[in-house]
Amino acid sequence: MPEDLAAVAHRAREASRLLATATRADKDRVLHAMADALLTAADRVLAANAEDVAAARADGTAEHLLDRLRLDEGRVAAMADGLRRVASLPDPVGEVVRGSRLPNGLELRQLRVPFGIVGVIYEARPNVTTDAAGICLKAGSAVLLRGSASALRSNTAVVGLLRDALTSAGLPADLVALVPGEGRDGAAALMRARGLVDVLVPRGGAGLIRSVVESSTVPVIETGVGNCHVYVDAAADLDTALAIVANAKVQRTSVCNAAESLLVHEAVAEDFVPRVVAMLHEAGVTVHGDERFAAHEGVVPATEEDWGTEYLSLDIAARVVSDLDAAIDHVRHWSTGHSEAIVTESRRAADRFVAEVDAAAVLVNASTRFVDGGELGFGAEIGISTQKLHARGPMGLPEMTTTKYVVSGHGHTRS
Amino acid sequence: MPEDLAAVAHRAREASRLLATATRADKDRVLHAMADALLTAADRVLAANAEDVAAARADGTAEHLLDRLRLDEGRVAAMADGLRRVASLPDPVGEVVRGSRLPNGLELRQLRVPFGIVGVIYEARPNVTTDAAGICLKAGSAVLLRGSASALRSNTAVVGLLRDALTSAGLPADLVALVPGEGRDGAAALMRARGLVDVLVPRGGAGLIRSVVESSTVPVIETGVGNCHVYVDAAADLDTALAIVANAKVQRTSVCNAAESLLVHEAVAEDFVPRVVAMLHEAGVTVHGDERFAAHEGVVPATEEDWGTEYLSLDIAARVVSDLDAAIDHVRHWSTGHSEAIVTESRRAADRFVAEVDAAAVLVNASTRFVDGGELGFGAEIGISTQKLHARGPMGLPEMTTTKYVVSGHGHTRS
Repeated sequence: MPEDLAAVAHRAREASRLLATATRADKDRVLHAMADALLTAADRVLAANAEDVAAARADGTAEHLLDRLRLDEGRVAAMADGLRRVASLPDPVGEVVRGSRLPNGLELRQLRVPFGIVGVIYEARPNVTTDAAGICLKAGSAVLLRGSASALRSNTAVVGLLRDALTSAGLPADLVALVPGEGRDGAAALMRARGLVDVLVPRGGAGLIRSVVESSTVPVIETGVGNCHVYVDAAADLDTALAIVANAKVQRTSVCNAAESLLVHEAVAEDFVPRVVAMLHEAGVTVHGDERFAAHEGVVPATEEDWGTEYLSLDIAARVVSDLDAAIDHVRHWSTGHSEAIVTESRRAADRFVAEVDAAAVLVNASTRFVDGGELGFGAEIGISTQKLHARGPMGLPEMTTTKYVVSGHGHTRS
Repeated sequence: MPEDLAAVAHRAREASRLLATATRADKDRVLHAMADALLTAADRVLAANAEDVAAARADGTAEHLLDRLRLDEGRVAAMADGLRRVASLPDPVGEVVRGSRLPNGLELRQLRVPFGIVGVIYEARPNVTTDAAGICLKAGSAVLLRGSASALRSNTAVVGLLRDALTSAGLPADLVALVPGEGRDGAAALMRARGLVDVLVPRGGAGLIRSVVESSTVPVIETGVGNCHVYVDAAADLDTALAIVANAKVQRTSVCNAAESLLVHEAVAEDFVPRVVAMLHEAGVTVHGDERFAAHEGVVPATEEDWGTEYLSLDIAARVVSDLDAAIDHVRHWSTGHSEAIVTESRRAADRFVAEVDAAAVLVNASTRFVDGGELGFGAEIGISTQKLHARGPMGLPEMTTTKYVVSGHGHTRS
């Protein structure tokens, strides 16, 4: 543990004590001050970001990665809007989750309280800096941020503004801090900071998330890898199925709730496979299909690896299955536990798919793209949890808190 | 990973699919059948246990540890009663945690669903075998049990009965299994079984729990270490304070919710310290005190180590503090995050203590001994979580489940 991180974490802990008892009004004022600061000092952020982009380009970074790293006025404005949106959401802290008076007269309440300190490890997008800071602060926790080295100048500029906004609003700057340390050392120290940091949230690709999950002694909330399936059942309305497959695959490809695999029931394959292949080809999608699909021109024969791939691109794996059981077995085997959809008019098929598929979200006659904090009405989200502990699915403000039991008596003793 | 554990876990996974859709009636029938089997075949369990006890005694095991290991007819009956009590509790599976109709007409429900497979690593008490199995099964999960080597014959006999009861009730025996493997290998394999086992719950002493938390790649729910404080405020009713300290320290000493530390506000120290020392000495408690306490005959001077010790015995650390802030600082520094109590008639002092102490449970004018699933009305518990993720405080049936979002539409696509 570098001395640095321990020192940063201790200052964050002290600061978090003040934040834990801050009112919603205090917190919202800071969030708006942060949004204002971003807009006022956008030039400073953009200048720092331009240096990051130039350095990354000089290192030979691919254009689509440069695009993730790049900020412009519109993106900075979107970061500010994100902070204001968090300000508009209810404060989760203090919510009474459960309450009762026990037979012996003890008053029992379970309250939402802040975690304390949240660590976030993320890849190049600098907007995660403000998204994560906004959600953690509103949920009453200090946040220690570890972005990628390629975005260090951008993140430093943004965090500097956020800290200034905290100070000017009368709260400690140490509520938001970058994790110190060169290269991978900083992230490694954060993962070993059990006792200093309460929760770690990795945001990024499958490799980053796996490495955090396997190395961290701090409790981790695993997010986001989505090998999402759409299963078109024997009893599907095929027009509906076509629209859902198109939306789930094509509407946006680089996101974890996009579909990556298509399963089609044998009974509708003869009708549906040609239609869906034509639609996908029209949309520029490469279909990696089993024999039934590969009989169509332009379909690439699928390998075993395709069933387990999160493409995040205009590619889809496609297979004909003999029945609902085979579909459920395939999904159970290959699912990453994110979002899985069935298209069917059969209540029985829908009920079985919902009950037997083990995922954060199961959709019936709806696109996997709806599994998102904003779409489901939770406001902001810090990520989509694909683990079973603590939070599963989109993690909004309530999921970024813990609880505390408060037991009040009048000298009660146990007999 | 020994092939064995993977094979056992795969069979448990298949079995858990059936259990996930079992009705409450199915599950309760099995729990009663298990209780019946324990009573009917108590002789077999007691004979196996007698061998364990004899072997442990031959190894020179201390008498109080032999007592933990030992079963008798009363304890077997209590194990059976525990299973029937779990049967009497509501089924958490299927509960709608949240539900709404979104503006676009999508129906959203968040349902409680089983974890799948729970691993439990525990020390000598063989009653944990039935407690853990009962709670996991009622919550819809298969359970892989790893008790201590000293209780292997007892646990094997008990698990054999539970598996027979499952079979006779028409459910797969593989829902309950002992983790194979000699010595520490079995536990080590269980801790590395990420992907095979969904959650790991360690039950036992601080050493066991620390080792699981630090070594496991499977998500862990940390349980039970309690360095619980009672703080007697300036505004305390001193008779109430005396009764609460007595109850929290003396009523049962070997449990995690017993008090281990006493803090007394300076303003009442002159009155209260002599009274509480006399009461504690009368009850046979050794007081490890600061200078103020150590001025009384029989009080042992406390060392720094005492503030951090979970004695689990007739010992208590005791200190006079200058004010509420000093009390809160002491608790924040030394608390294990289990249960912390304040005795005060001051609303302001109570509110500050509740807000600023970071623990699973904070008690006002009540004994720490109430922090227990049974006492708080949750029925059974598998342990008391001292971590912030997932569950904090007593973990009953709902805490032993996860959730799943079900999103139902009529061909909804995202625009």
